[in-house]
Amino acid sequence: IFNLYRKMSHSAAKKRRQDNNSSGGGSAQDSLYFQSYADVSIHEEMLADTVRTDTYRRAIFRCAAALAGKAVLDVGAGTGVLSVFCAQAGARRVYAVEASSIAEQAARIVRQNRVEDRVQVIRGTVESVELPERVDVIVSEWMGYALLHESMLNSVITARDRWLKPGGLILPERAELFVAPISDLVAEERLNFWDTVKGQYGVDMSCMAEFARSCVLNGEIAVHPVTVEDVLSHPCRFAQLDLRTVTLEELKRVSGAFCCQCFGSSSLNALCVWFTVTFPAEDMPPLVLSTSPFKAETHWKQAVLYLDEPVDVRQDTKVEGNISMYPSEKSSRYVCIHVDYTVGEHKQKSKTFSIPDGHSEDT
Amino acid sequence: IFNLYRKMSHSAAKKRRQDNNSSGGGSAQDSLYFQSYADVSIHEEMLADTVRTDTYRRAIFRCAAALAGKAVLDVGAGTGVLSVFCAQAGARRVYAVEASSIAEQAARIVRQNRVEDRVQVIRGTVESVELPERVDVIVSEWMGYALLHESMLNSVITARDRWLKPGGLILPERAELFVAPISDLVAEERLNFWDTVKGQYGVDMSCMAEFARSCVLNGEIAVHPVTVEDVLSHPCRFAQLDLRTVTLEELKRVSGAFCCQCFGSSSLNALCVWFTVTFPAEDMPPLVLSTSPFKAETHWKQAVLYLDEPVDVRQDTKVEGNISMYPSEKSSRYVCIHVDYTVGEHKQKSKTFSIPDGHSEDT
Repeated sequence: IFNLYRKMSHSAAKKRRQDNNSSGGGSAQDSLYFQSYADVSIHEEMLADTVRTDTYRRAIFRCAAALAGKAVLDVGAGTGVLSVFCAQAGARRVYAVEASSIAEQAARIVRQNRVEDRVQVIRGTVESVELPERVDVIVSEWMGYALLHESMLNSVITARDRWLKPGGLILPERAELFVAPISDLVAEERLNFWDTVKGQYGVDMSCMAEFARSCVLNGEIAVHPVTVEDVLSHPCRFAQLDLRTVTLEELKRVSGAFCCQCFGSSSLNALCVWFTVTFPAEDMPPLVLSTSPFKAETHWKQAVLYLDEPVDVRQDTKVEGNISMYPSEKSSRYVCIHVDYTVGEHKQKSKTFSIPDGHSEDT
Repeated sequence: IFNLYRKMSHSAAKKRRQDNNSSGGGSAQDSLYFQSYADVSIHEEMLADTVRTDTYRRAIFRCAAALAGKAVLDVGAGTGVLSVFCAQAGARRVYAVEASSIAEQAARIVRQNRVEDRVQVIRGTVESVELPERVDVIVSEWMGYALLHESMLNSVITARDRWLKPGGLILPERAELFVAPISDLVAEERLNFWDTVKGQYGVDMSCMAEFARSCVLNGEIAVHPVTVEDVLSHPCRFAQLDLRTVTLEELKRVSGAFCCQCFGSSSLNALCVWFTVTFPAEDMPPLVLSTSPFKAETHWKQAVLYLDEPVDVRQDTKVEGNISMYPSEKSSRYVCIHVDYTVGEHKQKSKTFSIPDGHSEDT
């Protein structure tokens, strides 16, 4: 089940009337986006993700020397957990900026943890708040599915340009995108289902195969966990973002080439996309938060892009092409992914994918 | 995760533009409802539910004597599986009426199973189609979450009144609704989560408990599987519908009293509602399709209504009151449940529940 529905928690839609709009930046789509963070479910999910939350905690404490006596801006602070980490690690002051009503909970948590003298929760969009000073450090957990869904990175970059002192620290400071061809067995089983109906109930439904294929292998970016056994080649990094310098203009289209060589014989039916983010630290190796299928699972799982039809590959078959990620025209917080690719000697193909549009009821 | 999102498959929302509106009965809400059945996912789910599909198959074949040489109307035929069962069991003619575009697949399945001389797939709402004759039998799988969600029963009753010969057979012919108090551990664990954050990350989030409670124990009808161990008393039937005679007027409010006596000491935090439907057969005991937590799980799971606060109960504590089910004013296909109840010596309380409104974006 596409996990967007846990992020865009249905009870958050109900809270929409009760929830005050945050000041500034008030489009209807932004309103819906912020209100999805007003319900407890999404915060449960993020905090229960120990890979995510523990990596941030370790990354922040590794920077204790850089935080001591300094000012920090937490962009999209949510329940304020990263801000409390920063205060615990020695920051002089932390501005925890949060546009959704969960900011009320963040304020209570800050008080409960006795850091209210140093952590100031500010309700509003980071584009519209006024801070009393520029900051030495920006921290933010902004990554969405396929890295760029939710487009929160734009807010982080805006905050960096406006509020981060020259030479200041940004956590994380780098993001990388990876792709690998996969043989997704879940999709195969779903399609095979229609061949099993005759044996089960005596009604032959094998003619459903074509229709089922068009539904299952559609143009949506699926989000689900990919098992290591499904991955058909070493990963290929196709893009990286230096968060100290990337511009809003560059974020309009994040793209790059890829070339993968298959390990062995299989049936390739999808491309898998995931990301890492990297935290710097003085005198220590950088810390990497990875959402790779080769690593422990996170709530981001992986992004799966189904080809229209499976293709047989064998050892050393090349899967290459270009991936381009950009905001949807319908809604700039929704990411689109366009892929041009060739598999072995087959001719080049293209396919465009988007996050399912289950929530905007265009009339 | 509330399963409505699997029923109202997000990719079905995308198909909305491509999908032709069925003839007749064309409100915007009906349009969205029918289009949720245009995608393969919901049909996979229903056919993979062997309790559901096998019970219908057995019920139909048990009626072979009543079907031989007769005419049948399948209301909301979907992929046409029930219609094919009826033809295989000996019906002379089956009218498979289906409003959504899945009717195209039903037609192919009918042909693939070589029953196209007897099964006629008709695309349209049953309220608007014209059949060449009245029928001897109506078959329909119309049950939604908490029985009445989707309000498809109204269409079945309308079809019965218009197209079923006097004394004709309706499968199933009876529906019953049950309730029992439960101690839902999933909700308890979700609330306890906020007490575990301090031990995990060194940040005390126990102050989130009240907010979390208001989100988790809200006014939504939750749909998830309830384990037998969670059920605190014998079930109590609070309503039954005789589908041969029930009227549209009576369906506007299905209600009844209940009285349950707890088995032993526990913390009651919710009421669980489920249903059964019963199929008649000559000279044989009736066949019951049950969605009880005491029986094998079905895709309907159970409906869970969380009280605002848990209440301690002990052996023989009475949990009694009245349950009333009626269509939502916002959207007549969405069911609402109102409960008045007392637990032991506590004073009477009331709470109204509705299916989460995640899909209508009222502006």
